[in-house]
Amino acid sequence: MAKTKTHADALTAREVDYSAWYNELVEVAALAEHSAVRGCMVIRPYGYAIWENIQRALDERIKATGHSNAYFPLFIPKSFLQKEANHVDGFAMECAVVTHSRLKKAPDGTLVPDPDSALAEELIVRPTSETIIGESFARWVKSYRDLPLLINQWANVVRWEMRTRLFLRTMEFLWQEGHTVHADYEDAERETRQMLEVYRELAEEVLAIPVIVGKKTEREKFAGAMHTYCIEAMMQDRKALQAGTSHNLGQNFARGFGITYQSKDQVETLAWTTSWGVSTRLIGGVIMTHSDDQGLVLPPAIAPVHVVVIPIRCAKPEERAAVEAYLAPLLEKLKARAFAGRAIAVQVDWSDARPGAKHFEWEKRGVPVRVEVGPRDMEQGKLVYALRTGGEKTTTTRDAFADEVLDVLARVQRGLLERARAFRDEHTRDLDDRAAFDAFFTPKNPEKPELHGGFVRGGWCGDAGCEAAVKEALKVTIRCIPLDAPAFAGACVACGQPSAAGLPRVVWAKSY
Amino acid sequence: MAKTKTHADALTAREVDYSAWYNELVEVAALAEHSAVRGCMVIRPYGYAIWENIQRALDERIKATGHSNAYFPLFIPKSFLQKEANHVDGFAMECAVVTHSRLKKAPDGTLVPDPDSALAEELIVRPTSETIIGESFARWVKSYRDLPLLINQWANVVRWEMRTRLFLRTMEFLWQEGHTVHADYEDAERETRQMLEVYRELAEEVLAIPVIVGKKTEREKFAGAMHTYCIEAMMQDRKALQAGTSHNLGQNFARGFGITYQSKDQVETLAWTTSWGVSTRLIGGVIMTHSDDQGLVLPPAIAPVHVVVIPIRCAKPEERAAVEAYLAPLLEKLKARAFAGRAIAVQVDWSDARPGAKHFEWEKRGVPVRVEVGPRDMEQGKLVYALRTGGEKTTTTRDAFADEVLDVLARVQRGLLERARAFRDEHTRDLDDRAAFDAFFTPKNPEKPELHGGFVRGGWCGDAGCEAAVKEALKVTIRCIPLDAPAFAGACVACGQPSAAGLPRVVWAKSY
Repeated sequence: MAKTKTHADALTAREVDYSAWYNELVEVAALAEHSAVRGCMVIRPYGYAIWENIQRALDERIKATGHSNAYFPLFIPKSFLQKEANHVDGFAMECAVVTHSRLKKAPDGTLVPDPDSALAEELIVRPTSETIIGESFARWVKSYRDLPLLINQWANVVRWEMRTRLFLRTMEFLWQEGHTVHADYEDAERETRQMLEVYRELAEEVLAIPVIVGKKTEREKFAGAMHTYCIEAMMQDRKALQAGTSHNLGQNFARGFGITYQSKDQVETLAWTTSWGVSTRLIGGVIMTHSDDQGLVLPPAIAPVHVVVIPIRCAKPEERAAVEAYLAPLLEKLKARAFAGRAIAVQVDWSDARPGAKHFEWEKRGVPVRVEVGPRDMEQGKLVYALRTGGEKTTTTRDAFADEVLDVLARVQRGLLERARAFRDEHTRDLDDRAAFDAFFTPKNPEKPELHGGFVRGGWCGDAGCEAAVKEALKVTIRCIPLDAPAFAGACVACGQPSAAGLPRVVWAKSY
Repeated sequence: MAKTKTHADALTAREVDYSAWYNELVEVAALAEHSAVRGCMVIRPYGYAIWENIQRALDERIKATGHSNAYFPLFIPKSFLQKEANHVDGFAMECAVVTHSRLKKAPDGTLVPDPDSALAEELIVRPTSETIIGESFARWVKSYRDLPLLINQWANVVRWEMRTRLFLRTMEFLWQEGHTVHADYEDAERETRQMLEVYRELAEEVLAIPVIVGKKTEREKFAGAMHTYCIEAMMQDRKALQAGTSHNLGQNFARGFGITYQSKDQVETLAWTTSWGVSTRLIGGVIMTHSDDQGLVLPPAIAPVHVVVIPIRCAKPEERAAVEAYLAPLLEKLKARAFAGRAIAVQVDWSDARPGAKHFEWEKRGVPVRVEVGPRDMEQGKLVYALRTGGEKTTTTRDAFADEVLDVLARVQRGLLERARAFRDEHTRDLDDRAAFDAFFTPKNPEKPELHGGFVRGGWCGDAGCEAAVKEALKVTIRCIPLDAPAFAGACVACGQPSAAGLPRVVWAKSY
């Protein structure tokens, strides 16, 4: 296991430097690191275990809604990107371009691309797979009997980002991308909304991240979509994080790739498609929603370790043997219990560090429950536990603990969601006045600009020009038009013109 | 679900054209297809479900032996490949080379790589990750306390193959690659052999593929390894398939990337590394080991569907309702039972095809158990089942079936391994004479060259030149030097010189 800093190296406080806090946390919790390849990250074992738990929870839900996993090529022929006009502008420009299939040794001994191996058509490393999957779907779909076609892919994708940040924005990232084909608009729309609801449930029930469910404006929608839905979360620096998107692609890609089907009436008919995805960015969202100045805080549903046991005295072999014997029945019982569909994962820290150092180490890693077992506890058949989320230490019996822990984990899971929701609500304003809007989004202390603002629910005239002007002036964008919110009859908070007919207050915020 | 051919389109028989049989089977069983990108495959949902089952079985075993999953970058800086001299010759030459990070529109409207975005150093799409992972390991390993470092990665890799074949050899494929660091040779060797044993168990107990466990010759070992172990299987055309490899990399990569640790005596010491991998090639091995002229045959341990139920009469709504009511308690019972760690997966075929057509469809897909339920069966509380692997139909009661099926699946699983082992033994010869050797590897009918030969256990002088000459003459190579086989005192089957001291009979064969 790689080293992490000891507790002597405390994290920078969020209030002092939020970005530094985030970067240090990712390092000391052993989640990820920058690689030698600019913009690409290494996901370390502890970070990857969190991703595996997110994957498992989501994969179950994707399959339960009737989708099958499949796998499509990493490479996309350049010409494919041009088959959907908006898509190419959104994705083709910043990407990894494969131009050669061979290296050769130059006279000076270095390797150079062999000019004789130049590809007839360059290949793009997939930034998203609508095009390469569309090409298969055009062959797979023949009749209305083949619809809906419901496919998902777990894969890596590459977007040539210039400013990267671990988990939040990296050149390569891991994700799932769903791709489906439907007979008509209504069925495609039903699918798009269903997967949006799956994402909301994943965010709130598994990750304990409260989200606003809404629709993107035309300006912010996916390149090539008819419309895009999203879930938006508030981080602790009060910026928004787009945590997942679900796109009704209309007939745009079906037209580009010739995805047609023969209807019941034997009419060749253009199909409708959707796509939807979430990525390793969710780990960044988990970190920034729950963690504190002591380190990572993890919702139990995705924690690689639920319970860490710190023996107070185990240096000598006979001491360790006594603790092992004392713990054996407890470990057996815990393994047989499951939280959120996974067996309770327990780790006993037998390292030769001092109990205090172990405490700080596991605190940084966000393990929800810490158990201490000392010689006196063992005499009395007891143990002491404390929660990563705080509160008093609790003394209980060894034999009662296994029954208590499921309740404890459920309480922690629920508590994290409630705390995050309260934080979000505290930093959300209904504003109708541009001056108040500007003040809300202006740092109070220009030298520490990070923690300010939040979400504004405000009117919008519906004009993309107005939206662009606000972005230019304040870096504030419309994160989404909330679903199931009442229409708003007031004025646009940005320009004072009447709010567009039928629109609710929309959510304005700075964002990642 | 995409269409497959109906039974009217029977497969080409293996005896007639083995390659055509394989290609047709992959298509009609809906496993995979060629994509628009030369050499890259699309793994279709049914094929991917098999891969998920293989992954699950292997991932459990990788974790049970103490390894953690992690994720490293897709791209490797060109210069990294040169840090291990043999590795660069083996892998750097045929590869996907990324040279630009942007496309731009040319005056004629087409997209071209933007010259301004040429990379200072080209990136290679990973063909294998020893180098990029070595760079991280050099940072992670500091002290003997960090060893052994036991990491695995599930990933896609790219090798620029000119002649590709679905699953067996494709430009992009999916695999796992284990990478570990150890304090000394002995520990690295113990790990290398342990993972070889994990692969043997996976092949034989999960995939029902009997394998020979052995060591590669110097000529056939991994580029950069100290030595390579492998598992080798015999396909039904009697060619060998290398199904998995485990490499003791010695100190070659540790030296190239500076992976050192401070020993207990505080001496900075060069570490030892290993790597090991299996890939989607295993699916090709499963197909070619078990399947027949009717289609795919799957070992139950990896079958996406264990039991298919074909209702004989279900076209009218009231007929279907009656069958549903009859099946409900059976489906409930089956779901609660597990084979090889997975709940029994049952599919009821409600399509409007005729029972005979359904039969042929599921036969092609290799579902181990086919259940038929007709009106008379329902009156009598019975059902009829048949196995994909043949034999008489069996009539049993609906209520007894759920208990019987676990035994049935276990018998099928065992039977496939036994049948494959008998086939391999039948086509394995101990030969000592070059004329007999040449005759064995020469097609009897030059117009139908595919089915001939097999494995020869023969002496080898130990000379790489002799090995090369046999390959040149017959396309026959030494697949492995079997482990735990007695030393052979005779002559080299190829050249007649004495067999190398201590070597057993080695395995000679043509191969994929």
